Amino acid sequence: MYPKSFASDNHAGVHPAVLEAMAAANHGDAPAYGDDSWTSAFEEKVKEAFGPDAAGFAVLNGAGANMVGLAPMLGRYSAIICADTAHIATHEAGASERLLGVKLLTVPTEDGKLRPADIKARLGGIGNHHESQPAVVSISQTTELGTCYSPAEIAALAETAHEAGLRLHVDGARLANAAAYLDCDLKAVTTDAGVDVFSFGGTKNGALAAEAVVVLDSSLAHAVPFLRRQSLQLASKMRFISAQLSALLTDDLWRTNAAHANRMAERLADGLTDLPGVSLAYPVQGNAVFATLPTAAIEILQQRYLFHYWDEAAGTVRWMTAFDTTPEHVDDFLDDIRKAATT
Amino acid sequence: MYPKSFASDNHAGVHPAVLEAMAAANHGDAPAYGDDSWTSAFEEKVKEAFGPDAAGFAVLNGAGANMVGLAPMLGRYSAIICADTAHIATHEAGASERLLGVKLLTVPTEDGKLRPADIKARLGGIGNHHESQPAVVSISQTTELGTCYSPAEIAALAETAHEAGLRLHVDGARLANAAAYLDCDLKAVTTDAGVDVFSFGGTKNGALAAEAVVVLDSSLAHAVPFLRRQSLQLASKMRFISAQLSALLTDDLWRTNAAHANRMAERLADGLTDLPGVSLAYPVQGNAVFATLPTAAIEILQQRYLFHYWDEAAGTVRWMTAFDTTPEHVDDFLDDIRKAATT
Amino acid sequence: MYPKSFASDNHAGVHPAVLEAMAAANHGDAPAYGDDSWTSAFEEKVKEAFGPDAAGFAVLNGAGANMVGLAPMLGRYSAIICADTAHIATHEAGASERLLGVKLLTVPTEDGKLRPADIKARLGGIGNHHESQPAVVSISQTTELGTCYSPAEIAALAETAHEAGLRLHVDGARLANAAAYLDCDLKAVTTDAGVDVFSFGGTKNGALAAEAVVVLDSSLAHAVPFLRRQSLQLASKMRFISAQLSALLTDDLWRTNAAHANRMAERLADGLTDLPGVSLAYPVQGNAVFATLPTAAIEILQQRYLFHYWDEAAGTVRWMTAFDTTPEHVDDFLDDIRKAATT
Amino acid sequence: MYPKSFASDNHAGVHPAVLEAMAAANHGDAPAYGDDSWTSAFEEKVKEAFGPDAAGFAVLNGAGANMVGLAPMLGRYSAIICADTAHIATHEAGASERLLGVKLLTVPTEDGKLRPADIKARLGGIGNHHESQPAVVSISQTTELGTCYSPAEIAALAETAHEAGLRLHVDGARLANAAAYLDCDLKAVTTDAGVDVFSFGGTKNGALAAEAVVVLDSSLAHAVPFLRRQSLQLASKMRFISAQLSALLTDDLWRTNAAHANRMAERLADGLTDLPGVSLAYPVQGNAVFATLPTAAIEILQQRYLFHYWDEAAGTVRWMTAFDTTPEHVDDFLDDIRKAATT
Repeated sequence: MYPKSFASDNHAGVHPAVLEAMAAANHGDAPAYGDDSWTSAFEEKVKEAFGPDAAGFAVLNGAGANMVGLAPMLGRYSAIICADTAHIATHEAGASERLLGVKLLTVPTEDGKLRPADIKARLGGIGNHHESQPAVVSISQTTELGTCYSPAEIAALAETAHEAGLRLHVDGARLANAAAYLDCDLKAVTTDAGVDVFSFGGTKNGALAAEAVVVLDSSLAHAVPFLRRQSLQLASKMRFISAQLSALLTDDLWRTNAAHANRMAERLADGLTDLPGVSLAYPVQGNAVFATLPTAAIEILQQRYLFHYWDEAAGTVRWMTAFDTTPEHVDDFLDDIRKAATT
Repeated sequence: MYPKSFASDNHAGVHPAVLEAMAAANHGDAPAYGDDSWTSAFEEKVKEAFGPDAAGFAVLNGAGANMVGLAPMLGRYSAIICADTAHIATHEAGASERLLGVKLLTVPTEDGKLRPADIKARLGGIGNHHESQPAVVSISQTTELGTCYSPAEIAALAETAHEAGLRLHVDGARLANAAAYLDCDLKAVTTDAGVDVFSFGGTKNGALAAEAVVVLDSSLAHAVPFLRRQSLQLASKMRFISAQLSALLTDDLWRTNAAHANRMAERLADGLTDLPGVSLAYPVQGNAVFATLPTAAIEILQQRYLFHYWDEAAGTVRWMTAFDTTPEHVDDFLDDIRKAATT
Repeated sequence: MYPKSFASDNHAGVHPAVLEAMAAANHGDAPAYGDDSWTSAFEEKVKEAFGPDAAGFAVLNGAGANMVGLAPMLGRYSAIICADTAHIATHEAGASERLLGVKLLTVPTEDGKLRPADIKARLGGIGNHHESQPAVVSISQTTELGTCYSPAEIAALAETAHEAGLRLHVDGARLANAAAYLDCDLKAVTTDAGVDVFSFGGTKNGALAAEAVVVLDSSLAHAVPFLRRQSLQLASKMRFISAQLSALLTDDLWRTNAAHANRMAERLADGLTDLPGVSLAYPVQGNAVFATLPTAAIEILQQRYLFHYWDEAAGTVRWMTAFDTTPEHVDDFLDDIRKAATT
Repeated sequence: MYPKSFASDNHAGVHPAVLEAMAAANHGDAPAYGDDSWTSAFEEKVKEAFGPDAAGFAVLNGAGANMVGLAPMLGRYSAIICADTAHIATHEAGASERLLGVKLLTVPTEDGKLRPADIKARLGGIGNHHESQPAVVSISQTTELGTCYSPAEIAALAETAHEAGLRLHVDGARLANAAAYLDCDLKAVTTDAGVDVFSFGGTKNGALAAEAVVVLDSSLAHAVPFLRRQSLQLASKMRFISAQLSALLTDDLWRTNAAHANRMAERLADGLTDLPGVSLAYPVQGNAVFATLPTAAIEILQQRYLFHYWDEAAGTVRWMTAFDTTPEHVDDFLDDIRKAATT
């Protein structure tokens, strides 16, 4: 029996309120494929959270949310500008290339965050028929390095993208953690910042398997039902997917869960500060802690805990917290880290 | 409030035992992406049901199960021979062409079932570099017209396919209904009949969103984890998908559910026999009833019931039963059909 | 040494005027990829032939012309309505499915020609997210069965397609033969008939390897240079491709070549009329003769001539004439057919 | 009227011997699609040049040669390791992603050349189902920066690739220039060095439009005819493509042309050595000269000559020589460079 996992926020189970909402949806028949009242309610909640132009589409997982959301903005010879750490670039088994058929123009970054200058530096091939044509800028919020864009930073990226005729996409697998960290509402970092399409991640926030693709441009939204179906992201018994997302969007459960996870990450990071040979690799601005520590200490910890290297050569590991991580989990883990680091 | 839907077996909810299994899996952490004990248990149950060479992979929906299962058997210039009514040909939004990139060589049939001669008639282009090369024969069991292949019929297709160097795939979205109709075990219509890859449908059988891809050829199985990931069919919190399938495979719940649905379809069909102007379009060999009746009667029924035309010109409609259809549902529906037909 | 081939118009060599034009282009340098004066001249000739809105793009072969021309009209979940004999459906090794990623909704026909009713019958799935969405109607002119659409027939197809929001594409690998048969100019069967995109085949008309994609809708044309490059259809030393097409478009060489080939086909067909057991399978409306004759006669002829069965079961063969087929070639062939048929 | 172009070896015309070979092939009929004696002769010459296991396939352009050659080594979730300057990564309009559907794992290099350590550093994701799986290492010979791999360097890459279960591909658009520079035969840098598949570029070497894909592994070769057809790279009047390649492979015309172009590049580079503010960006090991010079000088030169920046910020330009570049062309150009650099 492992202690609480710090390997991934996907190791957590389902929040009780989400499971209850699923059980509550299990009464009688409902039309399939989204033509049901739970899905209508979800769509309404998306509008409440993100504004009246926001069209929400429930899908089954994060990679699916990215592919379905990106597809309507991409043609046959398009390119996506993204950080070289982007999930779409590194951990979706080449779905961007195989399913979308587009090139990723990946940008090295210090902290996982793109800057306007990174976009501009990648626009040189526009109009050159020998090169893939940049059509979308895609960022992750929070980033894969646990950092968080401010609304102003996103707005600057949106402005740069739009001026060049590109769209801005946000992989929001941890959008809730970002809004909780920024202490703003979900709309402030999406709709209000000029984002065109984004995902709102449910699974890492306490859902079982549910993500939302949100499209803010009605000229793009009409294609999404077809793309979702073709991309294998349409659930037949859709009510149970919609119910999960509605549960998170009810009474700001998303914020409760994300803020808690963030606090646990902060607690963990705070506890590391005085440990010898241990340092933070990136600022902690969500529910991820990237720490660098001696290899010997890592090996000791991995005998008891399941977690992964982020950069083995550098001795950097990634620790994630979740809605169900407790202060005791963190403190026990810190005890073990302390022992390992001082062995 | 609609009465019990006969439009689709996807309109039903989740069987209580499945939901309980999901709730039971919601304790503590579990490694993500399938490296958990629920998934190991599911994999073991697949071997019990389909033999020691059967490798099971849990996915999220039926189209996903088809794409993930077909992909390892297909190259860049392959073709799939299938009935022109096949789900992959008609209702998956072109996923076969867009995601798999292959041609479907569709065959008209009388009853939704391919025959060996249909395969042989499509092999003429083998070796001709101007033509897509047939690589897979794909059948649906039960078929989209509600008919059922016997084990001998499947074995004959497998033999014909294998002799020509092709593989046999079964879209088993309703495999449980077939085995229940044939009163045989699941292995008899798959492994024992020479099938190479098939899906075992959970969702229409009482699951929330869970299907299994089963691969009987170990030279194909190694590719499936990558294809599942890339095809957006990998759940991060996999334990909850595996738990659904395990529930259906426990104490033959799949058979209980399917046999009941089949009986309800039979009851419905039996009740139609003496109605004026009403006839069966195809034999009832599972949980689907295709009936032809006067347009006026259909219009009356559709005011109260949600169901669709199968062939509007012919006046043929499709009615489906599910694990939760009751004799009373059927009898009430028959009463309404009788009234409509005799108006 | 075989006698003159009647197997394919691709068995002919290059018309002397085309080869001279290529040699004439071989002086000094020229910018690559189309930024040269030969290409400008070709583009101008396209406008002269097809009207001021016609944008011409030189490509390398017929399948390439089809893929490059179709691509800008197709999205990710599109379908093309075409005859089941269409070259794109039968002889391009699945390029439509693999490169374009779309479904072909193939229609059986009597004579290779689509009718407006065929289009209408395929529109039922529009708006249904489970089905590929028809976006283009593609016809071949002349057809793969050697028949020819009249301008009025094409206009009717264009009207039907446009009313439904679809585009009309013409595979014009033998467009020259059609215009010669109809005794009209090229514009009458394309621009004036409402076609959106078409190819104008050079290779079968006497070129070495050159086809034109012609786009009549400026909203589509901007994408073609990118699609041509990505689809591997852009020649670096473009001047030599453009020069071929310009040669055919100079002094109506295309018509001279096509009309001659058509006359030879007519002469062949005329000579068959009184042969016992020999009949025409389709009307001869271009440079193709489909004849049905006894298997024994076919076998005798194939000992001396290279040609293929079209339908082996029916005893139907396809014979093609070319710009370099002479009356003597035809008469010698007819002699041999007569001997074979009366053996 | 521009003076001799130094912008690209594609600006040159066709070598007279190639054009004569094409004209010589224009007698009578020939079977289409490669079933002709010119193609047989080409295939034989490939075996003479590259060894008895070498299967040659004539295609239409360089990007086509890359796509057709790479395809049989790649599955649905494969990745290609290549330099970030690779033509497949930068100048083929995303064909690798769209047509092959694979990810390019691009590696920054000093001089355009991959080293074994670059390969090893990219193998970390093997076996991880979240990541594209490296299947091929692709290098360019000569590289896009005008440098040349030695046979030993290629052998080392082949060994590293093969040990990891990957294949080695060479984009040989300028393979002739490499062999001429190395003063070895073509086999020494391909077959003998352990390459699996490569292209042998004809167009930049004096052909009109002809490249060869050469496959050294018979288990891969059977797929190439289908892939060539589907990838739009099969010429119907194939004899004229084969004749071009045979002309280059006759009496080592390829070497004569390449060695001459290389000498002209060397002459140009030598002439730059004493110019103030002018330096070579990379060693000159083929027919490319990368020079860095003051922006003002570049602007003066571009008023008279057509050539492009390679790196505008660095003031680096690329100058190419061809089979038809003369010493006078070079000396005139040097005069103009000298004037511009000393203005």
